[in-house]
Amino acid sequence: MKTLVINAGSSSLKFTLFSMKKEEVIASGQVERVGSEEPNLIYKAKGKKIEKMPAGVRNHTAALNSICKELLDDKTGVIKDLSEIEVVGHRVVHGGEKVSAPVVIDDNIKEVIKECFSLAPLHNPANMEGIEAAENLFPGTPNVAVFDTAFHQSMPKEAFMYAIPYELYEKLNIRRYGFHGTSHKFVANATAKLLGQKYSDLKLITCHLGNGCSMAAIDKGVVADTTMGLTPLEGLMMGTRSGDIDPAIIFHLCNNGYDINDVDKILNKQSGLLGISGCSDMRDLIKMKDSGNEKAELAFKMFTRRIAKYIGSYIAVLGGCDAIIFTGGIGEMSLPTRAEIFRLLDGMGVKVDSKKNDDTFAEVGLISKEESICKVVIMPTNEELQIAQEAMEALNKK
Amino acid sequence: MKTLVINAGSSSLKFTLFSMKKEEVIASGQVERVGSEEPNLIYKAKGKKIEKMPAGVRNHTAALNSICKELLDDKTGVIKDLSEIEVVGHRVVHGGEKVSAPVVIDDNIKEVIKECFSLAPLHNPANMEGIEAAENLFPGTPNVAVFDTAFHQSMPKEAFMYAIPYELYEKLNIRRYGFHGTSHKFVANATAKLLGQKYSDLKLITCHLGNGCSMAAIDKGVVADTTMGLTPLEGLMMGTRSGDIDPAIIFHLCNNGYDINDVDKILNKQSGLLGISGCSDMRDLIKMKDSGNEKAELAFKMFTRRIAKYIGSYIAVLGGCDAIIFTGGIGEMSLPTRAEIFRLLDGMGVKVDSKKNDDTFAEVGLISKEESICKVVIMPTNEELQIAQEAMEALNKK
Repeated sequence: MKTLVINAGSSSLKFTLFSMKKEEVIASGQVERVGSEEPNLIYKAKGKKIEKMPAGVRNHTAALNSICKELLDDKTGVIKDLSEIEVVGHRVVHGGEKVSAPVVIDDNIKEVIKECFSLAPLHNPANMEGIEAAENLFPGTPNVAVFDTAFHQSMPKEAFMYAIPYELYEKLNIRRYGFHGTSHKFVANATAKLLGQKYSDLKLITCHLGNGCSMAAIDKGVVADTTMGLTPLEGLMMGTRSGDIDPAIIFHLCNNGYDINDVDKILNKQSGLLGISGCSDMRDLIKMKDSGNEKAELAFKMFTRRIAKYIGSYIAVLGGCDAIIFTGGIGEMSLPTRAEIFRLLDGMGVKVDSKKNDDTFAEVGLISKEESICKVVIMPTNEELQIAQEAMEALNKK
Repeated sequence: MKTLVINAGSSSLKFTLFSMKKEEVIASGQVERVGSEEPNLIYKAKGKKIEKMPAGVRNHTAALNSICKELLDDKTGVIKDLSEIEVVGHRVVHGGEKVSAPVVIDDNIKEVIKECFSLAPLHNPANMEGIEAAENLFPGTPNVAVFDTAFHQSMPKEAFMYAIPYELYEKLNIRRYGFHGTSHKFVANATAKLLGQKYSDLKLITCHLGNGCSMAAIDKGVVADTTMGLTPLEGLMMGTRSGDIDPAIIFHLCNNGYDINDVDKILNKQSGLLGISGCSDMRDLIKMKDSGNEKAELAFKMFTRRIAKYIGSYIAVLGGCDAIIFTGGIGEMSLPTRAEIFRLLDGMGVKVDSKKNDDTFAEVGLISKEESICKVVIMPTNEELQIAQEAMEALNKK
């Protein structure tokens, strides 16, 4: 039987169709620029890649419809009937405090997703549209929501509370939620398998470094801490996001004539690597740095240093560490970024074989030396597969 | 010869008069509630303590004048003539990027202090009033400014820059400055002496835990990092300050109808230990916790956990650590707070002798075990003495 995974964003709808027996991708792709004049469909199946501009993709139902046409097409298709799809798994960004596991979607769960609109205004409404599109096109097929925040719900209270008035937690639900949970969980489990050890025995630090970046400290399967907070702005330096700053910077900017909505945009869209160097992509930034650009060099040092700092703090939180895991585009593929992080960590005893680091590009690898205080692992993430697996599990549990 | 140290706040003026030969305090005290209907003078000298309500203390000049009267008084006084005071050292909170050492005050330095009014609106204007009061009352006596931010000016750029648009640093001077510099420097130097090692050889982590709390990572005499930032709001959880939060919490509160000026007040005055538990004083909070109050327990765990996290991150930044140093009211005297921090750090190899911890109250002590990865030292701070010494040095250099 087959599982369809849907990731509905504000202007795109991504899909992956799995055959679950071998956990194999049989088709994948996305509709971009949903709702615009020029929507674009990218569809890949069995070695074929199709790109075209479907007509009238004004919303997510139309986008999913144009995907289904390709899936069923005589030439490009991979299924005969939509009923072959047993379950649809949806990535949902924010589940608040009410969900800590994947769940089959019903009216109650939809209510929970709506309650979290204000906590994830860019993501949850789009995720909901994706769910409604699937309900329209696959009547009777169960939908499962897999939440980015769910894994982090295992955090202890002293890790998820902010030191602000307690009633702001009670009234406005202000607390640390954490994101990228599906990815952190996937690479942590996969690393336990790689090491031939029980996941529930290990102290792990996972570094998801992509366009968004976050880390998690995982203590025997339970999240002990994570860098993103109420929103995905907190923590590490990212492509365009500031991560941690003195919160008083916001007051200082407003006192200097900035509008608070502009400050919000500045910190989310014009900061991070982009804000320091003018370039948000780590590959280009490293080229700039290597050709002598001082601001690119500064951004690179700031980015890597903050990761090293959080690794140190998570070793403290966990009281030691069995393995540090790198994933995401930068974590899997940026060899100089990883090399700089390892240079910083060498003094505290994290020892990496630099040749192994250089040889491990976008693949699984154990790259630490024997004498290192902990193992260092590169583990490509696969959030879609994790969502497909969890959707099946949720269905079977019901 | 004698050195007078002045710490002028918004509504108080503290003083300490040193005889520098033996580095001995010969008189100290403060005028409280300057400018109010009921100002109060506390004056201590030679075992005497005087408390009274002087008339007409409408400003810092009047406050300093009432202190000088006591210093010269036939019965309570300790000097015959104000000219015995060779130099007046002033604590000044913010020196921006232009000063990295104590300096004899002239018109240029006054200009620098004024330029930093917007960066330290509660402190620098009051510090300036203290300087002008001393100029009025001790004409011809040199005044030296000792800046809270000066020591931290040695930080590398990757530590002091925020990941926000670079032009905000250039135009509005937004960067990490750090505070409590005089205290961090004093206890770091004193610890080197205690250990019989060269200050310039050591990797040190200093924890100043008082009403305000900050930490510094000091690498061979150079500050590698510090927790406070543009303002004293960032970093550790404090009595009433939040320390680090997701900056987006501010946007979330404003979107929920809060005024930004109220949010500023909430984070600075109603957060931290107070915000979580209703109590900002660590002594009372521990009593509450011990009698079963859950919010006090939560606040205690959050406070200690964040210190442990920063210690871990600073061990990473320094690439190891020779000694962790505790100072300030909580650091010197709160045995349960220290014990909980040591419990958290035990797993990463920081080993403390719990009996030595219990025996070291408000005094110098080396309390780590032999097998610890680094030494742990309790070192009472003495910012006034540090200011007096630095004032003499600045004078002699001129």
